Amino acid sequence: MELTRILARHPRVEKPLLLRRSADGGESVKALPFIASSGDGNGNGNGHVAAFSWETLQQHCIELLFLATPHGVSRELVPEAMARGLRVVDLSGAWRLKQAEHRAVYGFSDVDTGAAAKLDASAVYGLPELNGASIPGAALVANPGCYATSVILGLAPLVAADLIDRERGIISDSKSGVSGAGKEPTARTHFVSIADNFSAYSMFEHRHTGEILEQLRLDAGQLTFTPHLLPIPRGILSTIYVNLKSATTAAHIQQCLGDSYGSKRWVRIYAPGNLPEIQHSVHTNYCDIGFTLAKDGKRLIVVSCLDNLLKGAAGQAVQNMNLMCGFDESEGLE
Amino acid sequence: MELTRILARHPRVEKPLLLRRSADGGESVKALPFIASSGDGNGNGNGHVAAFSWETLQQHCIELLFLATPHGVSRELVPEAMARGLRVVDLSGAWRLKQAEHRAVYGFSDVDTGAAAKLDASAVYGLPELNGASIPGAALVANPGCYATSVILGLAPLVAADLIDRERGIISDSKSGVSGAGKEPTARTHFVSIADNFSAYSMFEHRHTGEILEQLRLDAGQLTFTPHLLPIPRGILSTIYVNLKSATTAAHIQQCLGDSYGSKRWVRIYAPGNLPEIQHSVHTNYCDIGFTLAKDGKRLIVVSCLDNLLKGAAGQAVQNMNLMCGFDESEGLE
Amino acid sequence: MELTRILARHPRVEKPLLLRRSADGGESVKALPFIASSGDGNGNGNGHVAAFSWETLQQHCIELLFLATPHGVSRELVPEAMARGLRVVDLSGAWRLKQAEHRAVYGFSDVDTGAAAKLDASAVYGLPELNGASIPGAALVANPGCYATSVILGLAPLVAADLIDRERGIISDSKSGVSGAGKEPTARTHFVSIADNFSAYSMFEHRHTGEILEQLRLDAGQLTFTPHLLPIPRGILSTIYVNLKSATTAAHIQQCLGDSYGSKRWVRIYAPGNLPEIQHSVHTNYCDIGFTLAKDGKRLIVVSCLDNLLKGAAGQAVQNMNLMCGFDESEGLE
Amino acid sequence: MELTRILARHPRVEKPLLLRRSADGGESVKALPFIASSGDGNGNGNGHVAAFSWETLQQHCIELLFLATPHGVSRELVPEAMARGLRVVDLSGAWRLKQAEHRAVYGFSDVDTGAAAKLDASAVYGLPELNGASIPGAALVANPGCYATSVILGLAPLVAADLIDRERGIISDSKSGVSGAGKEPTARTHFVSIADNFSAYSMFEHRHTGEILEQLRLDAGQLTFTPHLLPIPRGILSTIYVNLKSATTAAHIQQCLGDSYGSKRWVRIYAPGNLPEIQHSVHTNYCDIGFTLAKDGKRLIVVSCLDNLLKGAAGQAVQNMNLMCGFDESEGLE
Repeated sequence: MELTRILARHPRVEKPLLLRRSADGGESVKALPFIASSGDGNGNGNGHVAAFSWETLQQHCIELLFLATPHGVSRELVPEAMARGLRVVDLSGAWRLKQAEHRAVYGFSDVDTGAAAKLDASAVYGLPELNGASIPGAALVANPGCYATSVILGLAPLVAADLIDRERGIISDSKSGVSGAGKEPTARTHFVSIADNFSAYSMFEHRHTGEILEQLRLDAGQLTFTPHLLPIPRGILSTIYVNLKSATTAAHIQQCLGDSYGSKRWVRIYAPGNLPEIQHSVHTNYCDIGFTLAKDGKRLIVVSCLDNLLKGAAGQAVQNMNLMCGFDESEGLE
Repeated sequence: MELTRILARHPRVEKPLLLRRSADGGESVKALPFIASSGDGNGNGNGHVAAFSWETLQQHCIELLFLATPHGVSRELVPEAMARGLRVVDLSGAWRLKQAEHRAVYGFSDVDTGAAAKLDASAVYGLPELNGASIPGAALVANPGCYATSVILGLAPLVAADLIDRERGIISDSKSGVSGAGKEPTARTHFVSIADNFSAYSMFEHRHTGEILEQLRLDAGQLTFTPHLLPIPRGILSTIYVNLKSATTAAHIQQCLGDSYGSKRWVRIYAPGNLPEIQHSVHTNYCDIGFTLAKDGKRLIVVSCLDNLLKGAAGQAVQNMNLMCGFDESEGLE
Repeated sequence: MELTRILARHPRVEKPLLLRRSADGGESVKALPFIASSGDGNGNGNGHVAAFSWETLQQHCIELLFLATPHGVSRELVPEAMARGLRVVDLSGAWRLKQAEHRAVYGFSDVDTGAAAKLDASAVYGLPELNGASIPGAALVANPGCYATSVILGLAPLVAADLIDRERGIISDSKSGVSGAGKEPTARTHFVSIADNFSAYSMFEHRHTGEILEQLRLDAGQLTFTPHLLPIPRGILSTIYVNLKSATTAAHIQQCLGDSYGSKRWVRIYAPGNLPEIQHSVHTNYCDIGFTLAKDGKRLIVVSCLDNLLKGAAGQAVQNMNLMCGFDESEGLE
Repeated sequence: MELTRILARHPRVEKPLLLRRSADGGESVKALPFIASSGDGNGNGNGHVAAFSWETLQQHCIELLFLATPHGVSRELVPEAMARGLRVVDLSGAWRLKQAEHRAVYGFSDVDTGAAAKLDASAVYGLPELNGASIPGAALVANPGCYATSVILGLAPLVAADLIDRERGIISDSKSGVSGAGKEPTARTHFVSIADNFSAYSMFEHRHTGEILEQLRLDAGQLTFTPHLLPIPRGILSTIYVNLKSATTAAHIQQCLGDSYGSKRWVRIYAPGNLPEIQHSVHTNYCDIGFTLAKDGKRLIVVSCLDNLLKGAAGQAVQNMNLMCGFDESEGLE
């Protein structure tokens, strides 16, 4: 939904084509007001909706394909898309992981030894602030997970500067709004289960953990990542706890973050004394980062905040498209 | 859930027996902490859970059966229960309506010309404040709908005193929390669909309309009932608009309400200048009623407020049980 | 806040100047990220913040002044602004009402017999869909109230076509998110008072009533307007009940709405069978309108939905500015 | 409010007397429906409301005084109350801390070298599960902070069994509903600031930190406590991270918790695989505790959940009263 909204207004995208695997005309028209005209007054769509087929895809001379499909489906579709000369931004977890032990969590690591497995090496992890150099030339970009984006961006400068005492363990206590749990109605996403509630889940085994470990080059035992479910529609806030190798100052941390992100359009660094909160980040493509350093100069807490549907998914996907196509990184994202 | 919670603590109910039509042991234990012991720390249950069968029912010497089943299932089970000498409080819409044109909305009006149809005449509409005289001797009590309870209690004294100009139309603009929409997870009850939202539905055709018309003896054209969905877990507030036959005073309206409800334990009348709000009524068995009269003395707005799961369902069902069994009307409901 | 957000990105507005009557530098910077740079990472402001003085105003060659001041302050400032040749869009209730009995509710009707009173006649009620012809030439535009916008737009076509039986009374049961109650922290706007709650207020005496009566040329007794407070941040939904003079069809109502609003950019008419809901209207400048007609063809319910901060306030103010300045009506509002 | 609600229904408390320091009759009647009769329909009060004076207090032969006053006021009132032979349960932070460096955060450590300072040594920290032996004979009980209760109860058995590697640091990432922030309306507690939001605050300096350190006998550098504000009315969930001295099993942890709390009425231990969530704890006096152990057997996450207004404040205060007066610990709390 968010992706179609952005693409429909993107100045460099002409009439986006939405392909659905199951044809459910009426429902899709209602749910996708930005692409198609509808009967409920929302009909100022700019685009087409059609049933998926490779023929339809190629008739429309599409160059770049976004896939928002289950992980297993992406493993099937991407090799065919590549063979047909399409470039792909995949929003599932299918192509994010290089190491077999991390990929195991998705359950497709053993079965696809064929075409898919051959592509794993060339897939680029689509976090522009880290991998901005390799995304423009990539044929296949794996769009990062929402939690992973918030944790990696919060930690990457500190890891790069080798400030963290990894042996003492890094903890990310992360909290997400409900849209992160998917649009399927379940007992867990029922309004009455979420409202006035808060809970932790998937302790020590959330599948975004592997992405974080790989991108930050951490060992499994060095990171504890705990997701929680917030009673709000959207937004992620990660409270990240690290111990520094040696005592330092807030100014030093501020400079370290500034060195990494000063020129990055979609990361905002908060001044010491200010912390990001979800309300300021949602409905934007920013990842907001702030921190507090203990008086001992060694215990550091980083707060990283983003909109799970934008910087955590569709916004970042468009950011990747912009880089792949040579557009300005921010087009369509203001 | 609410019914098991009340019954498990009711001083006159011994070890309530919960019968489920589909046996799903683990799930029921988790969801019904008040009846059964469970492994998640909530296990201070007082009661039994078992698969439904008439034999199990009678082995436990049950006298009174609460049915929280779909309407059609109630039409099947109640005749058998009556034949076995059980008394029944039915929480569905199966037995609430006397008139065929109102019953049509439930779709069983034509098909059951047998045992069920013979019971329609003897079923008592279980609104204790109106039908307190006939409930104690009833074998079958139809527990009212949640919306219907709020609207009928708000209007009944004014109708009884013949104050309303019915020809000008009565409007109840009612708003309900999401638990009124059932526990099934659907696209409509998904947290993301409800949060930050508000909407009207079933205009001119909600199936509680018939109950209101029958109990207040109104013609179909005299009442407009519009339900809305509030982004809160529980509670109903009905804003009810009537035109009076002749100009009157707030004191007169206050007295009219007091005459009807002064001795009723579970209706609270607000003094003029105060209006009920959902927060004060939820988690209680009260129906709270307030009003404002226009300066012209003729346009009257009644606000009626209750907890849809208590006075609008389980609490009222226990109130009915108390009356049927000769207990104090309020036992187990404080 | 919303107004500064829109103006900061408006293609025809150059570096908007925000003047505050009390100088509170730090606080304003934090609260107005769109205008000024700030230390909390939100600092991509485009504009200036300064203490209010007429000199500062004129140094910046401002042509048009938005006033978001209390009603009484607007009565003082506007005559001076007009004398200095400025055009004004006033967001308070100070200039909306022509009739003394409606104005009484604001408490300034008796005292200002001087400069302010002379301007009342020339102030234009800034509802572009109704008064689009007189706004472009106006020197003083009174931006409508949020509730009033939703009710007037829902009713205006039916009133203009003389379809409504006014003697039977029109009822607008309106519900608003909390931002409509202002940003002042009060016991009433405390999170704990609002969450899980819903309540009616100001029955028969809300001060937006006069605007609706004047714009629709209704007598006081013909309209009952009841506001309610929704536990959501933003959005208004009005459920409006009318009786038609004679039975008609949904197609006729649809056509009546289409005739009035077919060419209007910021009103969306829903097809029969679909109703607006708050989630689809918020964060847009649209007023969404749908309806349901009873089977008797005479009882009509109109649902009108908008964002109280956009079409109900800042968005409409910019729409008025666009018309006053000869810009496209939609600039800066997409 | 919660305290008056519990006391009004407590079987061993006769007509509780509520004394207010500022006389605001009308408002108090409205806000305290459980104590006094009121005009808004909520009037089934059982108790008295009066202006505070020592004479009024003693006329009513009160034995035990609950103080819900600001910290500084408690420091003034308690010595006088003790001199008059009253026993006190104080709900502020005035008497919780023994160590001057922890007490400094409240700002009264330096000034009161007189009567108040003499009482510090005899005040008992009122956490019944830890100090159950000394509460019955205490004249002055300091009711614990809400966050502190959740963190201390989650950690105490592990500390007592000396399982934790304190040198690696203990982290409690705690989240509280808004009622924990007090009933004063502020910009921060405004509905619009809280709804759809989530934020951290008081990093490294929240004043409940001292209580936790003292009760668990930890050094300041061994605990990092980070509070966050949840967009819900009530409830606290603490996610507590510890490293164990040596690898162990979930069964061992389970047994350790059971040894400490097996006989405690108001702590519920969840079985491995289940975690507490706020919805199951609110509106009860329970502290719910669950945990997950990493596969390495050394990283342990404890989840501790309670209602900040009950086990975190008023419920615990009554639990303390019950112990002080020789009643059953659970009276009035079911």
